[in-house]
Amino acid sequence: MLVVMQEGAEESQIQKVIDRLVAMGFIVHRSSGVMHTVLGGVGPVGDVDPAEFEVMEGVKECHRIVSPYKLASRSFKPGGTVVKIRDVEIGGERVVMMAGPCSVESRDQIEQIAAAVARDGARVIRGGAFKPRSSPYSFQGLGEEGLRMLREAADRNGLLVVSEVMDQTQIPVLAEYADILQVGARNMQNFNLLRELGQVRKPILLKRGISATVEELLLSAEYILSGGNYEVILCERGIRTFENSTRNTMDISAIPVVKSLSHLPIVADPSHGTGRRDKVLPMARAAVAAGADGLLVEVHQDPDHALSDGAQSLRLQQFTELMEQLRIIAKAVGRSV
Amino acid sequence: MLVVMQEGAEESQIQKVIDRLVAMGFIVHRSSGVMHTVLGGVGPVGDVDPAEFEVMEGVKECHRIVSPYKLASRSFKPGGTVVKIRDVEIGGERVVMMAGPCSVESRDQIEQIAAAVARDGARVIRGGAFKPRSSPYSFQGLGEEGLRMLREAADRNGLLVVSEVMDQTQIPVLAEYADILQVGARNMQNFNLLRELGQVRKPILLKRGISATVEELLLSAEYILSGGNYEVILCERGIRTFENSTRNTMDISAIPVVKSLSHLPIVADPSHGTGRRDKVLPMARAAVAAGADGLLVEVHQDPDHALSDGAQSLRLQQFTELMEQLRIIAKAVGRSV
Amino acid sequence: MLVVMQEGAEESQIQKVIDRLVAMGFIVHRSSGVMHTVLGGVGPVGDVDPAEFEVMEGVKECHRIVSPYKLASRSFKPGGTVVKIRDVEIGGERVVMMAGPCSVESRDQIEQIAAAVARDGARVIRGGAFKPRSSPYSFQGLGEEGLRMLREAADRNGLLVVSEVMDQTQIPVLAEYADILQVGARNMQNFNLLRELGQVRKPILLKRGISATVEELLLSAEYILSGGNYEVILCERGIRTFENSTRNTMDISAIPVVKSLSHLPIVADPSHGTGRRDKVLPMARAAVAAGADGLLVEVHQDPDHALSDGAQSLRLQQFTELMEQLRIIAKAVGRSV
Amino acid sequence: MLVVMQEGAEESQIQKVIDRLVAMGFIVHRSSGVMHTVLGGVGPVGDVDPAEFEVMEGVKECHRIVSPYKLASRSFKPGGTVVKIRDVEIGGERVVMMAGPCSVESRDQIEQIAAAVARDGARVIRGGAFKPRSSPYSFQGLGEEGLRMLREAADRNGLLVVSEVMDQTQIPVLAEYADILQVGARNMQNFNLLRELGQVRKPILLKRGISATVEELLLSAEYILSGGNYEVILCERGIRTFENSTRNTMDISAIPVVKSLSHLPIVADPSHGTGRRDKVLPMARAAVAAGADGLLVEVHQDPDHALSDGAQSLRLQQFTELMEQLRIIAKAVGRSV
Repeated sequence: MLVVMQEGAEESQIQKVIDRLVAMGFIVHRSSGVMHTVLGGVGPVGDVDPAEFEVMEGVKECHRIVSPYKLASRSFKPGGTVVKIRDVEIGGERVVMMAGPCSVESRDQIEQIAAAVARDGARVIRGGAFKPRSSPYSFQGLGEEGLRMLREAADRNGLLVVSEVMDQTQIPVLAEYADILQVGARNMQNFNLLRELGQVRKPILLKRGISATVEELLLSAEYILSGGNYEVILCERGIRTFENSTRNTMDISAIPVVKSLSHLPIVADPSHGTGRRDKVLPMARAAVAAGADGLLVEVHQDPDHALSDGAQSLRLQQFTELMEQLRIIAKAVGRSV
Repeated sequence: MLVVMQEGAEESQIQKVIDRLVAMGFIVHRSSGVMHTVLGGVGPVGDVDPAEFEVMEGVKECHRIVSPYKLASRSFKPGGTVVKIRDVEIGGERVVMMAGPCSVESRDQIEQIAAAVARDGARVIRGGAFKPRSSPYSFQGLGEEGLRMLREAADRNGLLVVSEVMDQTQIPVLAEYADILQVGARNMQNFNLLRELGQVRKPILLKRGISATVEELLLSAEYILSGGNYEVILCERGIRTFENSTRNTMDISAIPVVKSLSHLPIVADPSHGTGRRDKVLPMARAAVAAGADGLLVEVHQDPDHALSDGAQSLRLQQFTELMEQLRIIAKAVGRSV
Repeated sequence: MLVVMQEGAEESQIQKVIDRLVAMGFIVHRSSGVMHTVLGGVGPVGDVDPAEFEVMEGVKECHRIVSPYKLASRSFKPGGTVVKIRDVEIGGERVVMMAGPCSVESRDQIEQIAAAVARDGARVIRGGAFKPRSSPYSFQGLGEEGLRMLREAADRNGLLVVSEVMDQTQIPVLAEYADILQVGARNMQNFNLLRELGQVRKPILLKRGISATVEELLLSAEYILSGGNYEVILCERGIRTFENSTRNTMDISAIPVVKSLSHLPIVADPSHGTGRRDKVLPMARAAVAAGADGLLVEVHQDPDHALSDGAQSLRLQQFTELMEQLRIIAKAVGRSV
Repeated sequence: MLVVMQEGAEESQIQKVIDRLVAMGFIVHRSSGVMHTVLGGVGPVGDVDPAEFEVMEGVKECHRIVSPYKLASRSFKPGGTVVKIRDVEIGGERVVMMAGPCSVESRDQIEQIAAAVARDGARVIRGGAFKPRSSPYSFQGLGEEGLRMLREAADRNGLLVVSEVMDQTQIPVLAEYADILQVGARNMQNFNLLRELGQVRKPILLKRGISATVEELLLSAEYILSGGNYEVILCERGIRTFENSTRNTMDISAIPVVKSLSHLPIVADPSHGTGRRDKVLPMARAAVAAGADGLLVEVHQDPDHALSDGAQSLRLQQFTELMEQLRIIAKAVGRSV
């Protein structure tokens, strides 16, 4: 904790800050400059809010110098984490493609899509069974029956399964059918859910909230890691900005930023990141070019009649085309698809 | 649904859009201008995503003309909703003050604060028992024991209780102790929770998410209303923007905007809206001047030693001062405090 | 400048940072904690970009501890600046109302408005003669002829004149007719213009850009102050956010924030801040309740036929109503209107 | 213009809207649905603000259906514009690299950089002579002398020159030395400057403002095009968001969005888009993968001693590495570098 005092701060004000730092367990180092006195507090970890000091009299500003996350930081595991599930490695040399429909709709649908994306080189099938929808009047998913269909289609086609867990009560059923449990953007700070997922023995795919900073994403990962589950995959899927020509603004730069700050693998979801099918290919290519460890892409055999998110789902032949482009791009960053 | 075709859209493209609208249950009205053909679809309610049409060939843009919310809209109840709990009316002539600490910390603490804020004219005491914290290493609340302390302090001082419910499993315990169940900003789109709260017979205080539009806030209210619980109080508490001299940017204009769009009462939380004690008074005054039906304010008898959110908690005598200022301002908008 | 080294930074990396700080003229103070080495550089003013150090090897983060502005900071003039023009004091006890049309359209129009707002208690008339418009096909203003009409109407009604200067070539003509020269939001970082305005002997009303932080606003004020013109009035008029129910999001909290950081007076423009007439009154009240030193409000005798910004202009009787409300609210903050 | 009336709007309110549309020159088409009456106005081009109708009584919402820009729209020139300068084509098959220092600092510096980037395949050298700086205390550029050095270094190495024009008074000197005149992000809505550039016979590189939507960028291009200068190159360089781990958030999706909406070429500036050298390569690759027609990259022979923007300047050998990566990526999108 670095506390910078205002010019002309009184000695009694400085002393109060020192006393408070000491009371919190910090060892304080005082440094007096020409204009400002700076107090450096070295000490207890944890989440001391800098605003606690900024509202004290005579204080100009306060900075936290220890990252609020530890287990998620790059320095904890400089070589990087590879999440290995059977023969699939996320965070390794190969860019891992996860593809499938927004919602599982029927046995036929999911089988058709699974076969197609497996043939093109995807390693994981995605599909929602419990759908969080912003309107109470929309399709809410097939539930466990949908998960069963998803699992069977995956097994027939040699794929892994990723599917979303909406709250902690759903963990058991998801853990039964899925290989990777996805936490949606709206749940990124559902701390009760995160805490429970720390106890689970399955990898977690944690999506960035639309208004979450990268630091907050890593702090949410820390919740899971601190519970003992070290297999966390991060996912960039667009943030909310003033620009409205796309549904969200995909923050491609978050990919290299995460790579510097953390050892965890990061994938990108260009479908939610753009909301429109015609923007998915360019953004998928951009994510891989920027260093993403994988992609999560919505694909549907008949998007015009999809029960949810049809507008952002690729047609099957668009996915084929995407894979061809990615095979070239991956080489530029020393990888394969 | 209004679909605007591109200049020079082909007849076959127009026909495809018409066919799709009809298949969805819309009655279509076609209007051909000099440059653009416009298709107006009148029909089924529900949440059809305009992007579904925008990705079709020949389409320029698409607008939803029916609000995605109905029960929450002003036209559903033009006179406005007053949530009445015993003798307290939220949305009525009087601006309702809800005050108390971030977290219940001890019997002494909560009693001291309750007595003070009741004396100054508050009608509701706030206090958290289950704390969602962004760091896994922070204080997580006293749980049910805290709720019991809060209830007792409220009863001794003639106050109502508002407290936060973090997920659906906590509804029963909250419903036992609190008069108003609060949904925090991070849970504004926890649709499972919202759906369950629609079944509850207690008023709900629904906080706006930090990246939620007013429309999304109203859509979340719709979830609760559509379950049969009509007693929803909205709360503005700051949105995330690029400005970082305050923790969030309090969107005071959301107050008059909600008043035009919805019949539901709206209160403001200047403590979370600013994150800093020294900015709470000006923003509390601004919210009442803009027409807020009440305020939710953090007050602590000893903020320097608060276990959470001390930096944004008012001291007791600051709350007294605030009440005096608000008594004047309320008159300017034809109300009392 | 505070440079925080990464955990485990090598001695050679630390030395490089020290060498660079010294080369830049800083006196360096080294402080070694358990985990981090912190280097405090005390020294030359000016605008050293912290990123210069953040890209060096072994550096974790870097903070500037001297504000990049000096003349604009509160500590430069703790008592606050009052800009006095004849008998009008901006920044004094009285909240100063500046009102008038977006554009000067005709002699009749401006006379009618000037008479009305003067009668209600406004002290300054506003009106544009050179209009920066986002479309090349829109009305561009009456030019000098408009300024002459504005001056005459002001003089007949005992008002001061504020009008916008779009670039440095217009300074002489504006200085001839106006008492206060306004810099529009889009020009807030037109540094050539700001530098020239530092040479002018007229007060400047500097509007915050829609994506400018408060710090950047103060840095732009510094440009003018550093040229020798100490009469700068700041103006909050809305920032760009994701919310689109109002044209911009008026950042009311910027008012108390500026009051803490700077000695300069600050006014608010609820017309541009909201873009809609029906939101102007609530936001005008909110701004005064939050401590604004004045308001800049668009008023038109016939907004339905205004040549620009009609949608956000108050009708004359709305302005009368606003003044009555503000007379009450001003008392709550120890002021008058 | 599409005006949607509220449910239950009165006939007199509808009539008032119709009258106003007709008075503005629109031909009105009325369409009455079960719930809403919709008025479609076909007519005059120009920039009618939808808010003008939204504040009328009985109006629910209003949409503009004709883009406010025409000459910049894709439909104006479906095949796309190629800006050809000598043998360099921007918007053609080849991705055009523009590289150089932030500021021209000396003859030696610019010669060394020009030679290096030309050898690696750049076609255009960039460099600033007049520097708009956010602090009045920073280096402000070498002026015309800098332009002369830039021109000479370019000519010796077979490069074109792009350099920034800060205001209209600088147009003649820039036009003398540069092949492409750059409009900086802060000047994107300096309409007087844009209007003058419409008269110039040199291509203009127009940077997107940090808070400008894509629509506003195209409207600014329209200003130049409507003056008769058809050679406009757009540039994405990052927008301001809440995320602060990079200086701006580079909106890579703006590249495919512009490609759909407009015929103008678009390049990307990953140096300003990220503000940090270590993020430039990933974002440069991403931009080309997303379909950018070129890149504008800051390169410096000794970034640690650069007089401006050193933190975001690539070292010479990083630029070489980037070119190698881009040669691979360009193939994936059917192009070369």
